[in-house]
Amino acid sequence: MTKSAAIIGGGVIGGGWAARFLLNGWNVIVSDPDPETERKISEVLENARRSLPALLDNSVPQEGKLSFDTSLGEAVKDADWIQESVPERLEIKHKVFAEIQVNCRKDALIGSSTSGFKPSELQEGAANPAQIFVAHPFNPVYLLPLIELVGAPQTCARAKTALTEIGMKPLIVRQEIDAHIADRFLEAVWREALWLIKDGVATTEEIDDAIRFGFGLRWAQMGLFETYRVAGGEAGMAHFIEQFGPCLSWPWTKLMDVPELTDELVQKIADQSDQQSGMHSIRELERIRDDNLVTILRGLKARNWGAGQTLVEHEARTKPELPQDISKPLNTLNRVIPIDWTDYNGHMNESRYGLVFSDAGDIVMQMIGADQTYIDGGLSYFTVENLIQFRNETHPGEKVYVTTHVLQAEGKKLRLYHEMFRDGGELLCTCNQLLIHVSLETRRSCEPGPEMAAKMAALHEAQSKLPKSESLDR
Amino acid sequence: MTKSAAIIGGGVIGGGWAARFLLNGWNVIVSDPDPETERKISEVLENARRSLPALLDNSVPQEGKLSFDTSLGEAVKDADWIQESVPERLEIKHKVFAEIQVNCRKDALIGSSTSGFKPSELQEGAANPAQIFVAHPFNPVYLLPLIELVGAPQTCARAKTALTEIGMKPLIVRQEIDAHIADRFLEAVWREALWLIKDGVATTEEIDDAIRFGFGLRWAQMGLFETYRVAGGEAGMAHFIEQFGPCLSWPWTKLMDVPELTDELVQKIADQSDQQSGMHSIRELERIRDDNLVTILRGLKARNWGAGQTLVEHEARTKPELPQDISKPLNTLNRVIPIDWTDYNGHMNESRYGLVFSDAGDIVMQMIGADQTYIDGGLSYFTVENLIQFRNETHPGEKVYVTTHVLQAEGKKLRLYHEMFRDGGELLCTCNQLLIHVSLETRRSCEPGPEMAAKMAALHEAQSKLPKSESLDR
Repeated sequence: MTKSAAIIGGGVIGGGWAARFLLNGWNVIVSDPDPETERKISEVLENARRSLPALLDNSVPQEGKLSFDTSLGEAVKDADWIQESVPERLEIKHKVFAEIQVNCRKDALIGSSTSGFKPSELQEGAANPAQIFVAHPFNPVYLLPLIELVGAPQTCARAKTALTEIGMKPLIVRQEIDAHIADRFLEAVWREALWLIKDGVATTEEIDDAIRFGFGLRWAQMGLFETYRVAGGEAGMAHFIEQFGPCLSWPWTKLMDVPELTDELVQKIADQSDQQSGMHSIRELERIRDDNLVTILRGLKARNWGAGQTLVEHEARTKPELPQDISKPLNTLNRVIPIDWTDYNGHMNESRYGLVFSDAGDIVMQMIGADQTYIDGGLSYFTVENLIQFRNETHPGEKVYVTTHVLQAEGKKLRLYHEMFRDGGELLCTCNQLLIHVSLETRRSCEPGPEMAAKMAALHEAQSKLPKSESLDR
Repeated sequence: MTKSAAIIGGGVIGGGWAARFLLNGWNVIVSDPDPETERKISEVLENARRSLPALLDNSVPQEGKLSFDTSLGEAVKDADWIQESVPERLEIKHKVFAEIQVNCRKDALIGSSTSGFKPSELQEGAANPAQIFVAHPFNPVYLLPLIELVGAPQTCARAKTALTEIGMKPLIVRQEIDAHIADRFLEAVWREALWLIKDGVATTEEIDDAIRFGFGLRWAQMGLFETYRVAGGEAGMAHFIEQFGPCLSWPWTKLMDVPELTDELVQKIADQSDQQSGMHSIRELERIRDDNLVTILRGLKARNWGAGQTLVEHEARTKPELPQDISKPLNTLNRVIPIDWTDYNGHMNESRYGLVFSDAGDIVMQMIGADQTYIDGGLSYFTVENLIQFRNETHPGEKVYVTTHVLQAEGKKLRLYHEMFRDGGELLCTCNQLLIHVSLETRRSCEPGPEMAAKMAALHEAQSKLPKSESLDR
């Protein structure tokens, strides 16, 4: 059954949560007294729709139903998950939790997006304290996988399962602490950065460059300790710490002290930030950020590493069934076109059609038994020839699908005719693809075994009765 | 004339510098008394050779000449750039600088890789203080673009020019300060991380995950301030700081205090790190890291953003000449195969051949005048058909080249026959490509103007005399 989430507080974070749930097939009710809520949420959703679905090379789930209800009690009534993202003031949060717990299901999960409060603080005076926990996300919530979970172990375990199902990476924090884990680092860096600006050592742009051209690239994939483990080399982590250790007592930071946020300092930062980024509107910056994140995440997915591994696992979990009915052209692919496939002509680069057809061919391979286990066993198919004919342009964010007619499946040969369509049925591109069964040991062609041959014969038999597509005769 | 660098100190950082210079065509002499230096440097070089050249889609420069000389005086004698990467002890560095300045050219640049010392400290007692400056790199030096430059303005300006030419991103630090800029942030995060581990709040793996699944992904592309500018939304940076501001005085960090590095704490960290990463050798981790970095950097390059923009600019600077002699098959592409083009069969995915041929086709387009300015003016070529025949497998790190025979260049039509070879001449793949001249406004075919038509005619005339390749008749 479709699950439902109630989002309490419809700002940037609440909107990000709404998008994450909706685009993973949950129904969502947003509750916020602000009359601008619907517009704000729709703006976040627009960003999310053009980025999140393209992270996966799978088809995406049917989007859930979005509704708005200013009555908090009504909004939470049937929800499986209730997410509080109201302002960071404890008395407001307590009031909201009280109202939620009067109205919600006893088995509902009640997460708080708080950056700083501990669960014990959130739970003060609650009717059912164990139901309330910290589920701290990172902006943009629809793209960044990390969620810090802090609270009762059983509640966190249930929350982890639900979040994993919507593609997130829940990190259960072992013991409650102010600001959980990540924000303690952000706080430390922020303090140091304020001093550097106040003292005129660096501008906002120079600080950003010092991060994103250097250690930011390392941290996106390995974090702090694994990076240092590598830097330490064969001598090991303990040796590395001993080397690095003495610097700790050097006066390299001004962290012991807090700069006063005078109007002058705030203005200095705002001016520098305008100088650095003012040529882009916030909307433009959001899209630049999202396109960058999608590109980095998709890159890490291809390496099956870090945040990319989360995507690989999510994709495996949401993998569509192989086509069952072989008496008609096979629906071998359904997907959204990602931003990183676009070229200087403003459309999907010709080479990416090859990737779409390569993926479609993989599905037919799997149907006859050439799956990852088969490949790991040392046998596979290699493509030896592709005739690709381009009919119409394809753009990022578009949904497309491929139907495949198996023209030949006998001996070592697999000849496939793929047609790629835009959602709605317009023909975009065709590919006549010849694959040959190979040994991965000799890297030469060889006959498949009897089991695969039987599957190929059945497929060949069923598909040979189909009329050839009009486009094939072109 | 080929430039030369002397690398004083052949550890991980010195080795990274050597690789960066060598693979950008400089000659390099390494000087280090350690008898293991040659082996150590060759290991770093092996890593660099499999990652750095694949960052660019251009051909790579001829690698420089590497030599070793234990005599520091001999090593620095003719060098344009001298880079000191000896241990972080001021008296050792002073001794090294004294010996360098007795022997080196007066116009040589003398950079120090120091993480912590200020130029004024390095220059103490030097014969020519202004010649010595901080050039602080980030590991792995052959991949990460950032270099912090601190020192005399004229020296830093010269250093910036030289480093930009080898693809780096020099950041001139406005005023000297302990640990420059980036390491102050690293120091702050490191302190906080030690406390979290000591207090049992998180393990090394949990801390790394809290970084790389969340803000690490943001920092790889926008850094700190631009990220917060976006998060702040339309209300602006000043408003954002005011919201965030009060937290500064909350007790969210333990930075005021330094944890004692007891044997017990060091062992705890080492054990956790083994648990987290011990299944990979350091060599494996280096390659995983490098493949991830290449993937992220290439992704950002496609977005022309951050560290990727540095690559775009470097690629433009090192762009090869268009083929001049049109009386023979055109050499339209020379490149190294990047890691992110490999698929589950352990070889270059079929779709990436399409990309190679798409890039080769672009060169022919440029030769007849369809360059970026032409495309910006609203006219371009679209590919309508590709027949790709795969002959042999291609692997990451391999050098390949493409020769193109222009079969037809008249009216709206451009028909190209591309052959892709492995370095050495083995045929890997062929592509018969048909392109059509289009208006980017109507997205329909149209005739090119007389200037382009004349260039096409000349190309057609010259190439029509060439014999057809044997592979074309297959």
